[in-house]
Amino acid sequence: MIGFKRVTMSLSLLLLIFLTAGNPWPAGADETDTLLTRAQQVFGALPSAIPSQHNPITPEKVALGKMLYYETRVSVDGTVSCARCHPMGLYAADGLRKSIGNNYKINPRNAPTILNAAGQISAHWIGNRLDVEDQAKQAIIGPPSFGMPSYEAAERKLKEIKGYPPLFQKAFPREKEPVTADNFAKAVGAFERTLVTPSRFDAFLKGNKTALTEPEKKGLQTFMETGCAGCHSSPYAGGQIYQKFGTIEAYWKYTKSADIDEGRYTVTKNESDKYVFKVPILRNVEKTSPYFHDGSIDRLYDAIWIMGKVQLAKDLTKAQVEDILIFLKSLTGNIPENGLQIPLLPASE
Amino acid sequence: MIGFKRVTMSLSLLLLIFLTAGNPWPAGADETDTLLTRAQQVFGALPSAIPSQHNPITPEKVALGKMLYYETRVSVDGTVSCARCHPMGLYAADGLRKSIGNNYKINPRNAPTILNAAGQISAHWIGNRLDVEDQAKQAIIGPPSFGMPSYEAAERKLKEIKGYPPLFQKAFPREKEPVTADNFAKAVGAFERTLVTPSRFDAFLKGNKTALTEPEKKGLQTFMETGCAGCHSSPYAGGQIYQKFGTIEAYWKYTKSADIDEGRYTVTKNESDKYVFKVPILRNVEKTSPYFHDGSIDRLYDAIWIMGKVQLAKDLTKAQVEDILIFLKSLTGNIPENGLQIPLLPASE
Repeated sequence: MIGFKRVTMSLSLLLLIFLTAGNPWPAGADETDTLLTRAQQVFGALPSAIPSQHNPITPEKVALGKMLYYETRVSVDGTVSCARCHPMGLYAADGLRKSIGNNYKINPRNAPTILNAAGQISAHWIGNRLDVEDQAKQAIIGPPSFGMPSYEAAERKLKEIKGYPPLFQKAFPREKEPVTADNFAKAVGAFERTLVTPSRFDAFLKGNKTALTEPEKKGLQTFMETGCAGCHSSPYAGGQIYQKFGTIEAYWKYTKSADIDEGRYTVTKNESDKYVFKVPILRNVEKTSPYFHDGSIDRLYDAIWIMGKVQLAKDLTKAQVEDILIFLKSLTGNIPENGLQIPLLPASE
Repeated sequence: MIGFKRVTMSLSLLLLIFLTAGNPWPAGADETDTLLTRAQQVFGALPSAIPSQHNPITPEKVALGKMLYYETRVSVDGTVSCARCHPMGLYAADGLRKSIGNNYKINPRNAPTILNAAGQISAHWIGNRLDVEDQAKQAIIGPPSFGMPSYEAAERKLKEIKGYPPLFQKAFPREKEPVTADNFAKAVGAFERTLVTPSRFDAFLKGNKTALTEPEKKGLQTFMETGCAGCHSSPYAGGQIYQKFGTIEAYWKYTKSADIDEGRYTVTKNESDKYVFKVPILRNVEKTSPYFHDGSIDRLYDAIWIMGKVQLAKDLTKAQVEDILIFLKSLTGNIPENGLQIPLLPASE
């Protein structure tokens, strides 16, 4: 499975490098057409929600999932909810280098945004969660996360809050005992699958050639030319492949990392997975400082330059970094209205 | 000042006991009129927002205050915002016995809801904050709260987030250096002053005699008859006076308190203030378990019975407690739409 994924990855990489590493970009009207066509090939179309065969999105699941997203009472010390590490006001990341969970336990890595996150091949930096549902489920018993002693304990807590069982029944109408950790995960997952954030970049991708400013178009061009899009492709600008952080040089020579993270190696124990991480998505990236798996870099400018250095063997000029930065800001999108409304939770009794 | 307040308190208490401790209530249509008239005298009219002479409410202040309410980056460890202990989804309380602040420091008392809280004589259980603005300001440097080393440090953090200075300028247009802890407090205070939650009870108070159900009216009657309204008066059903918790018997004989809290004595050092607390407001009380200054009681039923025992020397019957409980649930109100919308915060750079 891993082997197959890696082959697929290599093929897509080659294809993308072919697509994106053309000649220096000429200016003009025709060139915007060419830019658009290549961008469409690299990024494709952002869906309005991210479907799942295993977890069809229904309004009832989304409504319940949104409530559970804010539910602290299902954590061992009553302080952790999904929203704690993924607050919507900060574009569903928490601004910390590494997130802090129950009883002030520090998580091993920086909290990635959950906006658009369902579109990735897996969840977490090292891909040790299958999808958003698996992430939500395992968070319940994750020692530095909700820290519950068992799924059963979480289910008991949810049943104690009398308002929840009827809502689980509505969301999972065919089940006799719907208040389960699996259904917690499905409901939260369904909510997260609706959190897609289209921006002006998507209007551009749909053919509106003036949706991006000229500097943004130049930035997009630089982003593709220099090779960023080699990994940061798909509608999410990332999240589709694993890649070694530091293909050219060790990442920690440039980041301010407090320790060296072996990345996906800790999951697979394959030597070739040392320092390999899931390529993060870049949607809303200007809003989700600090950067990298360990949140070791505060400024997006610095993160871009480091990526050029350690991934692409390029010492990007100030102008190139700034071009890319301007383009990346065009990926800041609109959070769906429903994602910005706070649900009222049922009383404890 | 304290002495004056205590005399005022005693007079109002006498008046309210006179108003509320009449004959057992007769049934019928005329009696609803009498109930309404007495309720209007006891509770008065809930305003649509709670004004302040020192801090006029403006849309710009409210908008900024709402953002700052969710701002974790102004706390020493980046994990605490107002919303942490006062999450709107749980009716602006946190469900914990005692709130947990920066670096997992435990607060001395249970977090009261901030909904309608601006209508109180002071803030915090022991009245050691003048008003909601003072509470917001002192929270910044409160050791178990935001824990910032100084107001200046907080101001520096706010200035570093480039999106904030223009918003402070808009909210405080006459000031040359508007990014101050005082203005943080005024903005948050202005937002909180809009968080008033009218319920069906207010429709009743306005004269709609069918706005409450018959059991709710019976509960209201019991609430006034038994003497609860002696302290829990005003549109907020509390928050207007200080009172000893345990006028009849020591509170800790009935609560499950882990320790004995000397209450307002810790502020004034007057012997007569031992075990004295601000009477909490009862708006939305069914939603803000656990109860009392130490959150030692989970069930509202138990809290009502204990109050009868230690404040009123009454061993309330199951029927009386249930009547009161039904009435209290009618105080669950509507949080203004603006209070349930998550504001997007400016990026860190």
